[in-house]
Amino acid sequence: MEIKAWAIKQYKQGLTKYTYEKNVGENDVLIQIKYCSLLKADIFFIDNFWGDTKYPLVPSSEMFGVVVKKGKKVNNIKIGDYVGVGYQTDACLKCTSCREGKEQFCNKQRVIAIHENGGLAKHIIVNSNFVYLIPSNLQKPEYVSLLGYGLTSYSAIKHANLKKGMAVGVVGLGNLGHIAAQILVSKNHTVTAFTHTEEKTTQLKKIGIRRFINPLNEKDLDKNKGTFDYILVTTYHDYDWSKFIELLKPEGNLHFIGLPNKNISFPAILLADYARRTVSGSYIGSRKEMKELLLFAEKKNIRALTQVFSISEVSKAISILRNNKGPFNIVIKISV
Amino acid sequence: MEIKAWAIKQYKQGLTKYTYEKNVGENDVLIQIKYCSLLKADIFFIDNFWGDTKYPLVPSSEMFGVVVKKGKKVNNIKIGDYVGVGYQTDACLKCTSCREGKEQFCNKQRVIAIHENGGLAKHIIVNSNFVYLIPSNLQKPEYVSLLGYGLTSYSAIKHANLKKGMAVGVVGLGNLGHIAAQILVSKNHTVTAFTHTEEKTTQLKKIGIRRFINPLNEKDLDKNKGTFDYILVTTYHDYDWSKFIELLKPEGNLHFIGLPNKNISFPAILLADYARRTVSGSYIGSRKEMKELLLFAEKKNIRALTQVFSISEVSKAISILRNNKGPFNIVIKISV
Repeated sequence: MEIKAWAIKQYKQGLTKYTYEKNVGENDVLIQIKYCSLLKADIFFIDNFWGDTKYPLVPSSEMFGVVVKKGKKVNNIKIGDYVGVGYQTDACLKCTSCREGKEQFCNKQRVIAIHENGGLAKHIIVNSNFVYLIPSNLQKPEYVSLLGYGLTSYSAIKHANLKKGMAVGVVGLGNLGHIAAQILVSKNHTVTAFTHTEEKTTQLKKIGIRRFINPLNEKDLDKNKGTFDYILVTTYHDYDWSKFIELLKPEGNLHFIGLPNKNISFPAILLADYARRTVSGSYIGSRKEMKELLLFAEKKNIRALTQVFSISEVSKAISILRNNKGPFNIVIKISV
Repeated sequence: MEIKAWAIKQYKQGLTKYTYEKNVGENDVLIQIKYCSLLKADIFFIDNFWGDTKYPLVPSSEMFGVVVKKGKKVNNIKIGDYVGVGYQTDACLKCTSCREGKEQFCNKQRVIAIHENGGLAKHIIVNSNFVYLIPSNLQKPEYVSLLGYGLTSYSAIKHANLKKGMAVGVVGLGNLGHIAAQILVSKNHTVTAFTHTEEKTTQLKKIGIRRFINPLNEKDLDKNKGTFDYILVTTYHDYDWSKFIELLKPEGNLHFIGLPNKNISFPAILLADYARRTVSGSYIGSRKEMKELLLFAEKKNIRALTQVFSISEVSKAISILRNNKGPFNIVIKISV
């Protein structure tokens, strides 16, 4: 069938209407898109920042919609279900990682923008194994980002095995960071926001953040040496990461879910001396974690501070994101 | 009392006889030194490589000896006991780390070469809390390095939480590396030695290593991408650490107990993409782990491939170590 979408057809071109062919396979569902997000990561794909973009590119890797057709082997989803789709759209479900329930590590996985067309479209066809039922309380634009940035944050924090009341920090309080910070706050950790964007402070206070450090102020960093159990990096900006390792307690962990432009660089002695520190990183999460997150988010009201744009405003939204001048989260209304 | 030792009195001077004053405190024991090791780390201290050496420097942070006097509050050690002392000689035993049995993280700890005179001496006076009883089977020069390099390896490997039969690697097969490799072999892991020193291969095969990769051969590294659960770095040499992170499976760990000269540097995406990888480091181990190691080493015969030098040959030993031309392990016989 013909899928109507919006795409960047070639590198450096703007967004235009675009149609592609795809059929509903026996394990697939056809989803009519209600909302999709546009993230800074979409801009990186649009601009081929990582070098692996496939054009024509239909952006957006977080979306809500309603199932309008399904393949004959689909049992887990019904026509009419309100569902979400995230960055990962398929995996082999046979390899060691998949069998261990860690299909986000599968070598044969498919993801939006590299292997698949995204959510900035009237419809999408996705394997039903990677489609998630959205609880009725969450069927609103501010919950769309749970599917991508929410999952990435939730999975990283879950595997950090934090103990009650630990001192945690979030570096970068943008779209990804403000969701991650809410999850940490809702788990009763003392959250410090490392941000130099003072105009965000009022809004960040509203989502439960009480403590702020400017990551560019060396004196403030030095004063807080050895005081953090966990620091979650959600930014693509470059900092002197040695300074952040020094902020950690002896068994502290600096974890990257944002991917800074330049190499992470530090002397090994900062990990080892009087300590057993860890630098780690992770990538989205498993399907099991997605389901856990949706329940958790409903209970704790984890959501993105969102501004909704109509489809006619999508080029404006891209421009706002590219210039880092936007709200925390942008969601495009497709058919509501 | 007067302690007779050998010291580097000033930066760039050779080793000469040296006497210092110290009294046996109520918690201390006086140990007559039998054997002490000389490590590459001692050369780094002698040459003030890390910039924190205090001269006069009495080197050696691994030693065996016999207790000849004890303070009135010492109950855990008797006169005549055959004992060992390692790099750490004291800690506050009151801070959070100490109370959790992780006194190697104590901010007030004392260590040889920075705060204390070392084992290249007729005697040493040490707080009995940091003195370890040596089982009779281990009272030989090849077991002296258990106190330092053995503990460092044992503690790192213990906290790696490896599962049976995991694929592990050791980068650098010198003094530290050949002890670490034996511990991994004795825990039934498949150990790959990353070494470009072919003349060591025969001896390394004798201690149970079956698989070798030249870390300078990019083709061999590329062929083994994604195949290791754990890689332990025991060298101070610099490699492209990105290549070693790429060798890891999705949840693999690259752990530093050797401290390379230059910064560790890699793109964050290597930790995160399709994975949740970890780079970590650690430092010696706890007193509890030292006691565990001594039992483990006795059972599994973990020892250093050692050449014994007399005290009259000590300057020769230093020169051999400085030029990286020595045996795996050098032990100085002081009074046997």
